[in-house]
Amino acid sequence: MHPPRIFLDHTATTPPAPGVFEAMVPYFTERWSSPAATYRNGRAMKRDVDSARARIGALLGAAANEIIFTSSGTESVNLAIRGVAAASQHRGRHIITTRVEHRAVLDTAAQLEREGWRVTYVPVDSHGVVDVGALESALTDETILVSVMLANNEVGSLQPVREIARSVKEHHPSVPVYTDAIAAAGYLPLDVERLGVDLLSLSAHKVGGPKGAGLLWVRRGVLLRGILHGDDRERGRRAGQEDVPAIIGLARALELALPEWSARAAHAGGLSARLMNGISNLVPGTTVTGHPTDRLPQIASFCFDGVDGEALLLQLDVQGMAAASGSACASATLAPSHVLQAMGLPQALAEGNLRLSLGIENTDEEIDRVLEVLPGVIERIRALRR
Amino acid sequence: MHPPRIFLDHTATTPPAPGVFEAMVPYFTERWSSPAATYRNGRAMKRDVDSARARIGALLGAAANEIIFTSSGTESVNLAIRGVAAASQHRGRHIITTRVEHRAVLDTAAQLEREGWRVTYVPVDSHGVVDVGALESALTDETILVSVMLANNEVGSLQPVREIARSVKEHHPSVPVYTDAIAAAGYLPLDVERLGVDLLSLSAHKVGGPKGAGLLWVRRGVLLRGILHGDDRERGRRAGQEDVPAIIGLARALELALPEWSARAAHAGGLSARLMNGISNLVPGTTVTGHPTDRLPQIASFCFDGVDGEALLLQLDVQGMAAASGSACASATLAPSHVLQAMGLPQALAEGNLRLSLGIENTDEEIDRVLEVLPGVIERIRALRR
Repeated sequence: MHPPRIFLDHTATTPPAPGVFEAMVPYFTERWSSPAATYRNGRAMKRDVDSARARIGALLGAAANEIIFTSSGTESVNLAIRGVAAASQHRGRHIITTRVEHRAVLDTAAQLEREGWRVTYVPVDSHGVVDVGALESALTDETILVSVMLANNEVGSLQPVREIARSVKEHHPSVPVYTDAIAAAGYLPLDVERLGVDLLSLSAHKVGGPKGAGLLWVRRGVLLRGILHGDDRERGRRAGQEDVPAIIGLARALELALPEWSARAAHAGGLSARLMNGISNLVPGTTVTGHPTDRLPQIASFCFDGVDGEALLLQLDVQGMAAASGSACASATLAPSHVLQAMGLPQALAEGNLRLSLGIENTDEEIDRVLEVLPGVIERIRALRR
Repeated sequence: MHPPRIFLDHTATTPPAPGVFEAMVPYFTERWSSPAATYRNGRAMKRDVDSARARIGALLGAAANEIIFTSSGTESVNLAIRGVAAASQHRGRHIITTRVEHRAVLDTAAQLEREGWRVTYVPVDSHGVVDVGALESALTDETILVSVMLANNEVGSLQPVREIARSVKEHHPSVPVYTDAIAAAGYLPLDVERLGVDLLSLSAHKVGGPKGAGLLWVRRGVLLRGILHGDDRERGRRAGQEDVPAIIGLARALELALPEWSARAAHAGGLSARLMNGISNLVPGTTVTGHPTDRLPQIASFCFDGVDGEALLLQLDVQGMAAASGSACASATLAPSHVLQAMGLPQALAEGNLRLSLGIENTDEEIDRVLEVLPGVIERIRALRR
């Protein structure tokens, strides 16, 4: 059904990491009781959930009870922003974020704006890096949240989150700093103390884990109101019966990926460097997007002059290569990327975007194949448009 | 790890139905692409999700695109109530529900009250049945939603949802009627046209499906604003990448359970009748709660004079029997049930609550064993309190 293909869209989702599904299986077949139940099988489930929570806490340098399990990265993002906003609105109704966040952040912020909140969208430079000075000058006494992603999921640029957190804490110590670390997980260190942030979100299926599993870490003392109501689970911050298999799979995937970030980064970085150098050399009219050095190692993003991104994806698909363009993680409609627009790329160039995102299973031979196929594909597309 | 036990807590969660997990397995191992991706493997995922949606729509007598997949029954409840409230607040800020809804409904309503909404909680009679007259007279021009569960998850009483829907449509045709059908699924027919409602929620793990999977059916034309923002998935009403294995498992579980509601009801009803008759005869000071005839067949709920429900659960656990008390589905803290309180039961009696909820795998021999063990357990608990 699924023939062997070259999968270069790891920022959308990742293949299951070895052992993750196997760890989940008992929770689909034998260990299915509710962790809230008072009888023996229920208590055993609670112990397993608690153990997963503690192990994840240890990976992040955080306390177990600061972890809130959710159904997705998107839910974690919504909970972070709306949860802090709802809990802190008596102190002010101003939020600061950036123009290059994931749409889950931007759409949640836009919804708050419709409800009367003020949102400052800090600009980025041509490399997609947030302007720290602009962020600092946007802080007011009304500000109750700063939300800056750890690294961009489209062009890979790292954001100066540590510097931002330090600056916010210095001038407005009561303002929590939230970082969406979903794209960075498994390729950067994620120690929350080192980062200096107050909230951090992760998604399982971006690091070899199952779909339907995410988490939000919330530093003790940060006010947060749940967005799903109905019981006291997750310390009253997320109602709904625990999805135990998902939690077990999330924990296992993070245990495999987070401690290995350095080796994973070296592998993916080697492949993406070959892609960036090779494609720049082989394809005239190529712009490599994102910061040249301070970037996620697994993402290589290009804009090709006179090429339609959608046509390019279709041709690569025919050649057995799965890739993305624009904000394609989020939508079947290939709208021009808000990230590339924020970086000041002309729309015509932004429409020729190709994002190749790598994973641990990609090989040098696969990169060879991309470098062999892509120049001809682009040449044919350009020829048709002439 | 899990010794053979008698599981009598199917209202909390259910054992996996045969074939459900097997249907999900390929989506954990091979078929893991994002359904939003434009390449071949992504399109295949989209077809599988569309197929699940169409099959579920057919089971409910609904259109496929009226189904919104969620991460749980709780999320579906929150989406129904907050989603309609947010979309309709320009028309009015009044909601009608009942005193015996699941806590997901009541907590969501309470949150809306904190935000300035008015909520009418319609009372129930001593059988836990909603007072239709009181509901009708609560309807005003400000009312934008009526929310009444199809059947109660604690005492089993059926609610006159068809009659309520007909009455609302007659006098206030623009007011949508939402029914939480989570407890009823698999034991009552669920044709949405026959019910006459506009929204209906289901949870997979209450009918042999996986945890982390629910749905909300929303009749075309009913205004609903999503509560999770970030992309255009589920027709813009629920952001977050589709949890494909969960959706496949949900569809399979509903395909197995919903069409078989009559046979399932006959089996569970036979067992629960034996429990209700037997325990009433064998245990003095027993009150059977809920409506005597218009009730879910799988739920038998009792209050025992001079017995503490928590102590009773512990003793039954020792005897290898998993059961619940109070609102125990939702919480490890055994608070006195709001349902029993709404029915007018004295608190002392309500604290002696035991809920036995049956499933298709329960046997006559298991009921024999309960009838053999329970009277002695209760006698011992009572003796200790004397």
